[in-house]
Amino acid sequence: MEEKLIQIGHGGGGRMARELIDAEIVSRFGDGPLQGLPDAATLPKIDSAPVFTTDSFVVKPFEFPGGDIGDLAVHGTVNDLAVAGAKPLWLSLALILEEGLPLEALRRVLDSLKNAAANCGVKVVTGDTKVVARGQADGIYINTAGIGCAYPDFHFDPASMKDGDRIIVSGPVGDHGAAVLTAREGINLKNGPASDSAPVHRLVEACREFGSEIRFMRDPTRGGLASVLNELVEGRNLDIVLDEESLPVSEGTHAVVEILGLDILQLASEGRAMLVCGPAVCERILEKWRGLKEGEGAVAIGVARGAKGESGRVALATLAGGERIVGNPRGELLPRIC
Amino acid sequence: MEEKLIQIGHGGGGRMARELIDAEIVSRFGDGPLQGLPDAATLPKIDSAPVFTTDSFVVKPFEFPGGDIGDLAVHGTVNDLAVAGAKPLWLSLALILEEGLPLEALRRVLDSLKNAAANCGVKVVTGDTKVVARGQADGIYINTAGIGCAYPDFHFDPASMKDGDRIIVSGPVGDHGAAVLTAREGINLKNGPASDSAPVHRLVEACREFGSEIRFMRDPTRGGLASVLNELVEGRNLDIVLDEESLPVSEGTHAVVEILGLDILQLASEGRAMLVCGPAVCERILEKWRGLKEGEGAVAIGVARGAKGESGRVALATLAGGERIVGNPRGELLPRIC
Repeated sequence: MEEKLIQIGHGGGGRMARELIDAEIVSRFGDGPLQGLPDAATLPKIDSAPVFTTDSFVVKPFEFPGGDIGDLAVHGTVNDLAVAGAKPLWLSLALILEEGLPLEALRRVLDSLKNAAANCGVKVVTGDTKVVARGQADGIYINTAGIGCAYPDFHFDPASMKDGDRIIVSGPVGDHGAAVLTAREGINLKNGPASDSAPVHRLVEACREFGSEIRFMRDPTRGGLASVLNELVEGRNLDIVLDEESLPVSEGTHAVVEILGLDILQLASEGRAMLVCGPAVCERILEKWRGLKEGEGAVAIGVARGAKGESGRVALATLAGGERIVGNPRGELLPRIC
Repeated sequence: MEEKLIQIGHGGGGRMARELIDAEIVSRFGDGPLQGLPDAATLPKIDSAPVFTTDSFVVKPFEFPGGDIGDLAVHGTVNDLAVAGAKPLWLSLALILEEGLPLEALRRVLDSLKNAAANCGVKVVTGDTKVVARGQADGIYINTAGIGCAYPDFHFDPASMKDGDRIIVSGPVGDHGAAVLTAREGINLKNGPASDSAPVHRLVEACREFGSEIRFMRDPTRGGLASVLNELVEGRNLDIVLDEESLPVSEGTHAVVEILGLDILQLASEGRAMLVCGPAVCERILEKWRGLKEGEGAVAIGVARGAKGESGRVALATLAGGERIVGNPRGELLPRIC
C-alpha cells in the first residue's frame, strides 16, 4: 500500500487544504460549540482576568519515550497558564508541516494532542495549517496559544520571597530532557528515561487555599531548575540552597546523567511544577500534591536564605557534604528539547 | 565588521536566550502594563465575548515589495479578528529562527512588526523564541495568536445570504500574492506589484451601524476571492456572479497576471476586506469605506442570485460579454504566500 505523504498543495488554501483540515483537524477537534473550527473563534465570556500564553514546539525527534510533540504542545501551554495561577480553558493549534511528512505520523501526533487536551479539560477552538517544502522544516512544528482565567487566590511575586522560604517540586526532575536526548542520540538503555510530559494544572488547583503563602510557581522546562532558580535570585539579597539528597531523580534519567556527564539541574521537565512558599504551608502543600497522581513524588528540595555575596546565588549542598554553585546555563546544551 | 548571526544557543532557555529576548523583544514590546513579557500574560477583563485566532507565517521571501513577515504577522491575525466582527486587542508572538539568520534581518522584521501593531492599536503581550539548526527552517517563521472582543453589532451567518445581495471589496485584489511571487521568482518589473499588507479593522468598525444587514465578511488571503466565494456557495442554492469590469486590479498586479497567466481571483490579498450585504446598505457601506484611506478603492463587484444548477457556483461576467465559472483552486498554485 502506498504511504500517504503531506504535499505542498495541502498548505495552499484551496480544496486540498480544506480536505486535509476536514479529515484530520475538524474531525478531531470540531466537536462542541465551535464546530468547523473557524479562522477566529468567538468564545463564552470570561468572568475573571484572561491569561494568555504561546509556545512553539520544535522538539527533535517529534516522537520520543513518554510522549510526542502533540501532547507536549498541549502540556507546555496548559502548564504555562497553570503556573501563572490560571485555569486553562482554550487552545489554538497552528501546524507547520514539512512536505513528505507521512500522514500516519501526523495522525498519531493529532491523536496524542487530542487525548492530552481532553485530559487537561481544554478545547482546541481555532487553528492554522501551513506546509513548507522539504528541507524547510523538520517534519512538524506546532504552535499552541492558550487562554485561561486567573484564579483569585494567587498573587505571585518573586520579590516577596523571604529567608526561610521553601522550594518544592512535584516529582523527579529532568526526565523530559533526558528522554529526548537519549532518543535523538540513538542511545539504547534498558529502563532508560521516559519524558514526564504531563499537565500540572491539577497541582496548581490543589494549592489554591495556600495561595497567599506561595511566592512563585513555575514549570522548569528549557534550562531546567538551574535556569528558573537563578532568574529568581539574580540581583536579589537571597540565596537558594538545594539539598542534593532530597532532589528526586528517576532511575533512567540518573543513568543518562551519569553516562553523558550532564547536570541534572539543567535538564528540562515538561510535567513538573515547582514553587516557593512560606515554611508554614510547605508540609500542607506537599500533602495535597502527594494526594494526586501527578504529585505523588513531591518533595521539598531547598530553602531560601540571606545571600552570602552581593547578589543571590543558587547552591547545591552535595551528598559529599560540600556546597557547589549552580550556574545559569548559557543555553547551548540541548537545542530543540521542546 | 562581523555580521552577527542567530546561533543555536539563542534558543536554549539559558543566558544567551535571555539576552536576545531582552535586547530584541522586551526592548520593543515590553512597554505598557505587561513589562518583561511574562510566559503568560494576565490581561484586563474583557466585557464582551472574547474572540481568539492564530496564524503561522512562513512567507518566502520574508521581505518583499510592500511588506515583510513582521507586518504580515500582525495584519494577518488582526484581520482574522476584525472580519470575525471583533475589535483586536492582544497578540502573542512566537518566533522560530533558523541558525545563521542575520540579527539585522531579525531587527528589521521586529521593527516592522512593532510599527504594524501600533498602527492596529494592539499590544504584543507574551511570546516564545525557538532556534533550529540550519536547514530546519527558512530564515524565520512567525506565529501570532490574537484576542479581540466581539462587537455586538454583527451576526454573520452565510446561511442568511439572499438573492440580490451585493459583494463588496475594499480595494484592488491579489496584490500580496503578485508581489510575493514576483519577489520569489526574481522577476523585475518597472512599477511591479506591491503587497497590500495592511489592517482592515478600521473598515470593520466603520460598518458596525449596518451590522444587521451584513451576512458575511472575510479577508481573501490564501486561495483569493475564488476560494472564499466558492466556500460560501458550495451546497447552497445561490450563485455568485462577479462583474469583471468592476473588479479592482492594480496596474502592477495586472501586468504580473498577464505575463504569468495567473487567475487574479486566486491571488491572495493581505489588506483587503470583502463582505456580502443586503442591497439597501451597499452604497452606504461603500461611502463609509471610501472615506477611509484603506477603503478608498472600495467597489461592489458582484451579486448573489438564485442558483442555476443543483449547487451554487461562482461565475465571472467577463469583459468580452460571456460568463465563466470560477473554480475553487486546489491550492498548489502558490505555497508559502503568507
